[in-house]
Amino acid sequence: MSDTVSDHVPEYPELMTRDLPAGVRLVEGGVTAANGFRAGNTACGIKSDAGLPDLAMLVADGVCAAAGTFTTSKTASHTVLLDREKLSSTGGHAQAVVVNSGNANCSNGEQGMLDARRMSELAAQKLGVDPSLVLVSSTGIIGRRLPMEKVEQGIAQIEVNSSGGPDFAQGIITTDTRTKTIAVEFTIEGKTVRLGGSTKGAGMIYPNMATMLCYITTDAAAEPAYLQQMLSGAVDDSFNMVCVDGNMSTNDTVLLFASGVAGNTPLNASSPDAALFESALRHVTRYLAREIPRDGEGASRFQTVTVRHAPTRDDARKAARAITNSPIWQCAMAGSDPNWGRVIAALGKSGANLDHNKLDIALGGILVVSQGIAAEYDQAAAKAAMGQAEVAVDVDLHLGDETAMAWGCDLTHGYIDENATYTR
Amino acid sequence: MSDTVSDHVPEYPELMTRDLPAGVRLVEGGVTAANGFRAGNTACGIKSDAGLPDLAMLVADGVCAAAGTFTTSKTASHTVLLDREKLSSTGGHAQAVVVNSGNANCSNGEQGMLDARRMSELAAQKLGVDPSLVLVSSTGIIGRRLPMEKVEQGIAQIEVNSSGGPDFAQGIITTDTRTKTIAVEFTIEGKTVRLGGSTKGAGMIYPNMATMLCYITTDAAAEPAYLQQMLSGAVDDSFNMVCVDGNMSTNDTVLLFASGVAGNTPLNASSPDAALFESALRHVTRYLAREIPRDGEGASRFQTVTVRHAPTRDDARKAARAITNSPIWQCAMAGSDPNWGRVIAALGKSGANLDHNKLDIALGGILVVSQGIAAEYDQAAAKAAMGQAEVAVDVDLHLGDETAMAWGCDLTHGYIDENATYTR
Repeated sequence: MSDTVSDHVPEYPELMTRDLPAGVRLVEGGVTAANGFRAGNTACGIKSDAGLPDLAMLVADGVCAAAGTFTTSKTASHTVLLDREKLSSTGGHAQAVVVNSGNANCSNGEQGMLDARRMSELAAQKLGVDPSLVLVSSTGIIGRRLPMEKVEQGIAQIEVNSSGGPDFAQGIITTDTRTKTIAVEFTIEGKTVRLGGSTKGAGMIYPNMATMLCYITTDAAAEPAYLQQMLSGAVDDSFNMVCVDGNMSTNDTVLLFASGVAGNTPLNASSPDAALFESALRHVTRYLAREIPRDGEGASRFQTVTVRHAPTRDDARKAARAITNSPIWQCAMAGSDPNWGRVIAALGKSGANLDHNKLDIALGGILVVSQGIAAEYDQAAAKAAMGQAEVAVDVDLHLGDETAMAWGCDLTHGYIDENATYTR
Repeated sequence: MSDTVSDHVPEYPELMTRDLPAGVRLVEGGVTAANGFRAGNTACGIKSDAGLPDLAMLVADGVCAAAGTFTTSKTASHTVLLDREKLSSTGGHAQAVVVNSGNANCSNGEQGMLDARRMSELAAQKLGVDPSLVLVSSTGIIGRRLPMEKVEQGIAQIEVNSSGGPDFAQGIITTDTRTKTIAVEFTIEGKTVRLGGSTKGAGMIYPNMATMLCYITTDAAAEPAYLQQMLSGAVDDSFNMVCVDGNMSTNDTVLLFASGVAGNTPLNASSPDAALFESALRHVTRYLAREIPRDGEGASRFQTVTVRHAPTRDDARKAARAITNSPIWQCAMAGSDPNWGRVIAALGKSGANLDHNKLDIALGGILVVSQGIAAEYDQAAAKAAMGQAEVAVDVDLHLGDETAMAWGCDLTHGYIDENATYTR
């Protein structure tokens, strides 16, 4: 290849460019793509596989407007409880986050909360930032005390820099087989704005008003209330629509930091560029969310479920999620079996308003159910469609105008093997 | 052994006698234990494994008071729609039911309803019973037309008799590895009353106001409205509390026939013996329900989850069901891993009102979580407890007075293998 640096155009995966909004371009760098952010990771022995990065840090040059969405679990981790408290007391501002992987710091009682606070304070000291502006996340095994000596040592040794986005992505993963990162660039008031993020998650995935860990940065300026509104909406149509195994986690967290370094007028709901910012943010969250089931524990293929013409948005969402959350359908996917009876059963159970005699189902573009009964279709072609790396499940309810998309994966022996002996 | 017929006491499995109510004795015979019922099966080629029984029939000597509970699925099978219609038009009366296994008669459009009606009429002709009194059930693959020539031939050749209960139990199963049957005897107004039933089901199990196929008979006399009320309550605390894989089926059905041959005053809510009848019925439904996850597809062990001291009945039920419906906890069970973090996560997600800092969890009688944090316990003993054929998961929320029990199983490679190529 004769690419020179000047004319090099990176080849982005198709999923990264799919439905890329007008005016939005892909760039490299993840959480450090935006100006004014530094990040890094270190290995301090929290994970049982010694040597794997298990502590990561992200810090902005100044105070950011910040927004977060968290698990709605009634057994949320101590770090989630602490972050909610901090974001509320600062009125939506933050400057850094420290994350450990390998230990969830959940179900550790008062000691768990003390350890989360201490972790935040150690990071604040190291970075020279006010502790109230340092958020904390943990992910890993539930019910074991955070090894604070290791955390202390990790924070002392970690180094952050403005190209540390990929390292940060590496430091936050657990059973993931790869990192999950994207960044984009667009223009507001003639100023170049960047927005990028990384997520982790492969099991215990069925977020609800929340998600697994995800960190997004932007150098756009934005009002905190607006930022929170945009983030909540984007998460609702992305992370809240993925499923690996129907299990909501105790530690689900999405954080968005806006440094304002780009110098635009702070965005709010009436800004002329609000729609562009929202479409860029939604591109990032949708891509990152989809990466989770694509890397689902043991998954051999992933599914994109689209439910069209539902009577309400809620019906569309319930129907789409029910399909991704049906283990018996996930098994059929694993066997490349176009057993659409499992989709019919999932729809029937979903709670969505539907008419069995009106619905159509297509698998990989092949119409298998028409008006609620078997369509005439080529079994071999349907089986081949089910054998692809991505399976499109399209349901048309013919009852209204609402659409929802959900993303999931198949269910294989690998999922069981991963989770049969997780705490060993 | 020197047992003679006269002093022979059958050895019932422990689960059959567990919590047996006072005044209730176990007997043999299943759906033909009660007087006035005949049953049988035949093989007519509906199942792909030729030679396996796939058509079963149950008939009473006269018209019975009858009650039913059915799937709440929005894609219910044609047979479920027909039975609902029949029970409603007869005001809770029926005399027979014909059941096929191997084909669900679901998602077959108008033809499916015509076939269900025809199946009922053929059975009515054969038995000399009014067609309005003959119910129909189907279970098996969704979306394939019922092979009516085979059904016709099967109904022509089937024979029913008063000891055909075990044959009936054999004729209704699909992926079950064994039949699931119980019968009991008790006394009302000095008259011996019998009540017995059989159920089927091993996958696609997460009933909601409904269940898999189950047939119960009694020779007690009872008013239809009372019978329906008793059945609904019993089903709610039994079949509605089991889970194999979180999938509600399109064909779930429980039917209860009361022949009145015992000659007691028809039971209603104010009868002196109503409590005894209810406790006997609940023993039967609980035993049969528990048999389903115990024989769950691929299951190697089963779990009994008890949630105590919940603020409301609904909280207790939600919390208990969430644990049985957590694939990631089911995997831990498969690996004998006392990974109670999965139970914490399931409780947090359940939607039940709870206080993380108050709850206790015991696995196989070993307290592993006390007031929301790890208790001091012997890892080896906890692991051994998780390796038993039955694992007791006991949760105490310390928030109220309500208790609920739910039953489930583990998740193994066998479940995936069963469902990866189900329609082949």
